[in-house]
Amino acid sequence: MTDSRGEGLGWRGEAAAIALLTFAVDVETPVLAAGRRYADHAMAMSHQAYDIRRGLPRLLGILDEFSIKATFFVPGLVAEWWPEAITQIAERGHEIAHHSYTHRPSTGLTHTEERWEFERGMHALNRLGIEPSGYRSPMWAATWRSADLAREFALTYDTSLMDDDMPYVIETARGPLVELPVHWALDDWEQYAFLPEPHLGYAIEPPEKALAVWTAELDGMREWGGLFQLTSHSFLSGRPGRARNLRRLIETVLARGDVEFRTGEQLCAAVLADEAVERRKQEPVQVNEDIYPQW
Amino acid sequence: MTDSRGEGLGWRGEAAAIALLTFAVDVETPVLAAGRRYADHAMAMSHQAYDIRRGLPRLLGILDEFSIKATFFVPGLVAEWWPEAITQIAERGHEIAHHSYTHRPSTGLTHTEERWEFERGMHALNRLGIEPSGYRSPMWAATWRSADLAREFALTYDTSLMDDDMPYVIETARGPLVELPVHWALDDWEQYAFLPEPHLGYAIEPPEKALAVWTAELDGMREWGGLFQLTSHSFLSGRPGRARNLRRLIETVLARGDVEFRTGEQLCAAVLADEAVERRKQEPVQVNEDIYPQW
Amino acid sequence: MTDSRGEGLGWRGEAAAIALLTFAVDVETPVLAAGRRYADHAMAMSHQAYDIRRGLPRLLGILDEFSIKATFFVPGLVAEWWPEAITQIAERGHEIAHHSYTHRPSTGLTHTEERWEFERGMHALNRLGIEPSGYRSPMWAATWRSADLAREFALTYDTSLMDDDMPYVIETARGPLVELPVHWALDDWEQYAFLPEPHLGYAIEPPEKALAVWTAELDGMREWGGLFQLTSHSFLSGRPGRARNLRRLIETVLARGDVEFRTGEQLCAAVLADEAVERRKQEPVQVNEDIYPQW
Amino acid sequence: MTDSRGEGLGWRGEAAAIALLTFAVDVETPVLAAGRRYADHAMAMSHQAYDIRRGLPRLLGILDEFSIKATFFVPGLVAEWWPEAITQIAERGHEIAHHSYTHRPSTGLTHTEERWEFERGMHALNRLGIEPSGYRSPMWAATWRSADLAREFALTYDTSLMDDDMPYVIETARGPLVELPVHWALDDWEQYAFLPEPHLGYAIEPPEKALAVWTAELDGMREWGGLFQLTSHSFLSGRPGRARNLRRLIETVLARGDVEFRTGEQLCAAVLADEAVERRKQEPVQVNEDIYPQW
Repeated sequence: MTDSRGEGLGWRGEAAAIALLTFAVDVETPVLAAGRRYADHAMAMSHQAYDIRRGLPRLLGILDEFSIKATFFVPGLVAEWWPEAITQIAERGHEIAHHSYTHRPSTGLTHTEERWEFERGMHALNRLGIEPSGYRSPMWAATWRSADLAREFALTYDTSLMDDDMPYVIETARGPLVELPVHWALDDWEQYAFLPEPHLGYAIEPPEKALAVWTAELDGMREWGGLFQLTSHSFLSGRPGRARNLRRLIETVLARGDVEFRTGEQLCAAVLADEAVERRKQEPVQVNEDIYPQW
Repeated sequence: MTDSRGEGLGWRGEAAAIALLTFAVDVETPVLAAGRRYADHAMAMSHQAYDIRRGLPRLLGILDEFSIKATFFVPGLVAEWWPEAITQIAERGHEIAHHSYTHRPSTGLTHTEERWEFERGMHALNRLGIEPSGYRSPMWAATWRSADLAREFALTYDTSLMDDDMPYVIETARGPLVELPVHWALDDWEQYAFLPEPHLGYAIEPPEKALAVWTAELDGMREWGGLFQLTSHSFLSGRPGRARNLRRLIETVLARGDVEFRTGEQLCAAVLADEAVERRKQEPVQVNEDIYPQW
Repeated sequence: MTDSRGEGLGWRGEAAAIALLTFAVDVETPVLAAGRRYADHAMAMSHQAYDIRRGLPRLLGILDEFSIKATFFVPGLVAEWWPEAITQIAERGHEIAHHSYTHRPSTGLTHTEERWEFERGMHALNRLGIEPSGYRSPMWAATWRSADLAREFALTYDTSLMDDDMPYVIETARGPLVELPVHWALDDWEQYAFLPEPHLGYAIEPPEKALAVWTAELDGMREWGGLFQLTSHSFLSGRPGRARNLRRLIETVLARGDVEFRTGEQLCAAVLADEAVERRKQEPVQVNEDIYPQW
Repeated sequence: MTDSRGEGLGWRGEAAAIALLTFAVDVETPVLAAGRRYADHAMAMSHQAYDIRRGLPRLLGILDEFSIKATFFVPGLVAEWWPEAITQIAERGHEIAHHSYTHRPSTGLTHTEERWEFERGMHALNRLGIEPSGYRSPMWAATWRSADLAREFALTYDTSLMDDDMPYVIETARGPLVELPVHWALDDWEQYAFLPEPHLGYAIEPPEKALAVWTAELDGMREWGGLFQLTSHSFLSGRPGRARNLRRLIETVLARGDVEFRTGEQLCAAVLADEAVERRKQEPVQVNEDIYPQW
């Protein structure tokens, strides 16, 4: 790739913006992460099992309509509990990426526990023959250790941070990690998650509203040349009306005519090949208790 | 019924989707389930009594306009406190189904207590000459015991779980139980429930918004051949502007031309007669404390 | 008045529905009711003082544009702290009604405390030469004692309960009390109240949305012949964009052509004169601890 | 300036309303104010760092498109941590104002602590060569001490109170302080802030909805001759879709044709020069524990 900025095209080629469709296949894990006792709640478990039974197959069908390849983040426990469904995703040509083992937020874990999540999650995917290159922290709750851990487990990109509209490279002690930034506004959870116990959310918005939020960001990314990364959860966006809304979103992206779809690993490679992309070291925030006494 | 899949038509006949209108006639029970002390709150009690005084009769009138038969879930205590109103529902040709005795969520009860809820609830309906065939857990908070208990009390279908868009059969130890799955997105509570103490909700959405949410699901169910099961609460959807919105929803369903209305028991029979419907055993989720240490 | 139901017209005359505009002039009281310490929060106090400084005069101006008389509910403490502003309301021809002394919800008070609220509130209004005939519980949090207390203080109507769409008469031990029922859906608080500390609410909805909610109820009340009673708070609806929305609501009501405006006391008189209006005794809900063990 | 009310034009000249665009450049401070431990949450920190990396430059670009000068409120700690970015704001011709040192709400601080916030915040801005004339309390959580403290530090206007639609003058013991009143309805936080831990908010509204809320207030301010003061946060409104919405808001203001843009200090001078503007002393609310027993 060559680019007006250098000798080749940059990470987004000639497109005004890049669209990356990502799906979290969390199934039971976000509910169990709120407490093991919720395994006894048959309805809550059924709410999550919708993911594998209906949501995931339907969304795979929508992607096939447009021959779009997407990136699926799968907790290791899900890969162990639902191996056929996860294998199917890969067999249909999509990318599968690392999403911890249990979906517990890393910010509540010790270093040892966070490392265990990486290890078990990787092991579970590997057993299905999957070699993930991407990583996403559960609930996006990354720690300052997460980038190094991702590199320790040979992952080459992360998608948990919110400090940019376009990809950049984190220079970790173990080498470069591409960051593909996310944001709450490009997530379906804020629009669709309703479960009172455990409390996952109280939002039942019409698909039109979600589409309005996402389209505004899409057009902004086209104006400023950014990465439109949408995060959908197959237990949420897999519902019939919402799946149709995802189809409408894809049609909207395509109708713009200047946006191209990529998977996470395709983008990762393009970013690493683009010398104009910013390289930075993570600088953990240091804060004095004289300034903020409250722990 | 004969079907392209076999010798006859399946559970939804030739319709693209089936519409099932269900109503919970909860009256005081969800407030008292939050604490007996709320009996002293005259306004909260009046907010719930609206159900019997205005909401229920108005909604029955709307159904009559279209000669649609619906399914009404009635807690046993409501049947004891408001026998004439409940008898009226049956006399106007609608189905009455079991909805526990007190509307306390089953997930907070012991097995003995949950059983008592089934027994007392059944007894209260029987005393009015009602022999229910359907069951719904209060707040949809089913346990893994609920399906067996439903069969123990000779109920033939349940409507509390969320793992599908279309009916299926649960093979319990006591025989088959038809499951007619529900979802938060097809419920009026998320759009309309506002009561600060006890806190039932903080939502006062315009009817147009509720209609947008429901219509999206309706069209999705038509695309994928599912069950459009709407849950309304007569103390919420019985308000004048919302009752008119229910009329608009029915008109929308009818205008689609390819959706047919059924009651719960009609659907239950159609499902049991359809050999192509999936039969499954419930598999309670087992989870290790090594994986999720937090109870 | 003569009526098709009897010899004269009923409480709503020949109108399809009656519109009653009510305003709560709460100023600082809902914030102080959440804790005396909030008197030290200058911004929270300024948020409430907007009521008298801008909100109330602006809304009085809007009412004058249409020569509509409305009913203003004023806590006694507000009458003591802002006597000129309250006197102004009366001088411009509006009705002033009783709204407790401190705006603490009655459900959190003893009988003696609730009685003290009635007495002090009445005294404060009387000192301004106001003889109220109507009463509204703060936060609508009526107890089963409230109706009797209202009659004890010679009040002839109440507007705190939610069990009807049209007026009725409560037969108290001290004589009849007209009830003009209210509802959360016809209140501006759910659409507009935002104050994090003390937490009054988190809603900043566009005026269009509030108008959609209210217009739906208006048309429902026209269909079923009810009372469209809107509750606005001058510290909320007195903001410029919201005041314009109230104007739009009034224009909407007028454009319907079949709705008439009344004050609370006009309605009270019409209801008492209408023999067809339902008379009922309040029946406090009695609930057994065997049924609801949790207090 | 001469005015129909006196000899010259008043604070808003011949405009129907004045528009004041303000931006809070809070970066990490609102998160750290919720607890020092959140410095360890890499994602939360990245969510805030977006402010300096993308949000602020983008919003500066939007302002340049229209050659509009705005007022930026900057906590002292932000000036210390991000000196180049803050200096840039000033170099591009905008006003920088005082916004405390750490963004902790003043209502939770002692007098000594609140004074320390003023002092450190002023010192940090001064070190960049900035001499602020305006002040805004973090979270608008002003105390009754705040006005005096502002004057003690030679600040000439404040923008934290909500008791008016137009500027007024507070007569403090240390001289006049112009108040430019704010309101929740003219803030982007209520529309856009979503961060679960620490909990900053749960709102992801479409830009269209924010625009509807703001435009309603704009037209109200035009009708009644007020101050349309919009508060945006560069970490929130700096997102692509939202930045475009700010552009749309500016276009809306310009299209009205009768609204003029001012900075805070320009307005402050105009207000001080307008003798018709109301002068008042702050009167802290005194409240008796006999009336409100609960502290």
